[in-house]
Amino acid sequence: MPDKRLLVCVVGMPGSGKSLVAEVARELGFDVVVMGDAVRREARRRGLEPTGENLRRLMKILRAERGPAVVAELCFPLVDASGPLVLVDGIRSLDEVEAFRRRYGRAVLVAVHASPRTRFERLRARGRRDDPRSWEEFRERDEVELQVGIGTAIAMADHVLVNEGTPEELKRAARQLLTKLVAGEAGRA
Amino acid sequence: MPDKRLLVCVVGMPGSGKSLVAEVARELGFDVVVMGDAVRREARRRGLEPTGENLRRLMKILRAERGPAVVAELCFPLVDASGPLVLVDGIRSLDEVEAFRRRYGRAVLVAVHASPRTRFERLRARGRRDDPRSWEEFRERDEVELQVGIGTAIAMADHVLVNEGTPEELKRAARQLLTKLVAGEAGRA
Repeated sequence: MPDKRLLVCVVGMPGSGKSLVAEVARELGFDVVVMGDAVRREARRRGLEPTGENLRRLMKILRAERGPAVVAELCFPLVDASGPLVLVDGIRSLDEVEAFRRRYGRAVLVAVHASPRTRFERLRARGRRDDPRSWEEFRERDEVELQVGIGTAIAMADHVLVNEGTPEELKRAARQLLTKLVAGEAGRA
Repeated sequence: MPDKRLLVCVVGMPGSGKSLVAEVARELGFDVVVMGDAVRREARRRGLEPTGENLRRLMKILRAERGPAVVAELCFPLVDASGPLVLVDGIRSLDEVEAFRRRYGRAVLVAVHASPRTRFERLRARGRRDDPRSWEEFRERDEVELQVGIGTAIAMADHVLVNEGTPEELKRAARQLLTKLVAGEAGRA
């Protein structure tokens, strides 16, 4: 029996605005699975402090040990436990999307895009402990994501939300897209 | 002395609509350098028939021999011979963009995006000799581009044009963006 869930996967470079899309999804009644949380949980299980550095190292180890879709696999129990509308935030490769598609039959891939300059300025303004302080740090962090294959997932997205304006503009576009996906899904059922 | 040209590089998966953006650029007075033409010229120079298969093989050989930015380098003479507004169509990796930036000081990277489903239907409708006839052929051809690193260039684009509607809609968006870039450049000069 095909899975009846609407599964929306979100991919975007650091600072592109993924979490705003997740916020809108929550408002619309989606359960949100944050892929980074699955890695954080795995870090705790292994007794590691969940610093950005540790998490990135752990992800590398996990991928080497258990294949490129390991983080998606860590999310399966969370998706299984979710309701009919699920948004997965933090796709980093097409392998992960394909793992979700193999398991749940269908997953809509949404990319959030902002230019490097815009993302850098946002991350600097945000100033989380882990956020880059210089252009070089920013580019290095981008490079980690790009190495995993995030660009391929962005290139192969089913929908792109361009986020060069205000948070409200992005949220409006996200609301419109998600509402359309929910309606389309309802129409198919 | 910094180069005074406005150099716009266009990246997009097969069938995304790059050539429509080039068409608009020509209308606006840009010289258009098609990266594939540079490879075709190199093929002729080597006495090769310019079939899709031969060109892809030649690009692979060139990259192995002369590095990941070789196709950009083959375009330098064409850009050098161009006027103040140049659009380079057919970027396949960030290495190529960086080569243009090293040589010309600045290059604006524009990605054209359409979903895999939309691109497949367009390419099938277009039916050039080299276009895919099945979903499998389409995905294989995408894979060739993704292997070169086209996804990274798309992820790192300065601007994205989403092309899910009519050709006219894309051309309107492209005209607006290019006009803005030309004006910005004029303002800076």
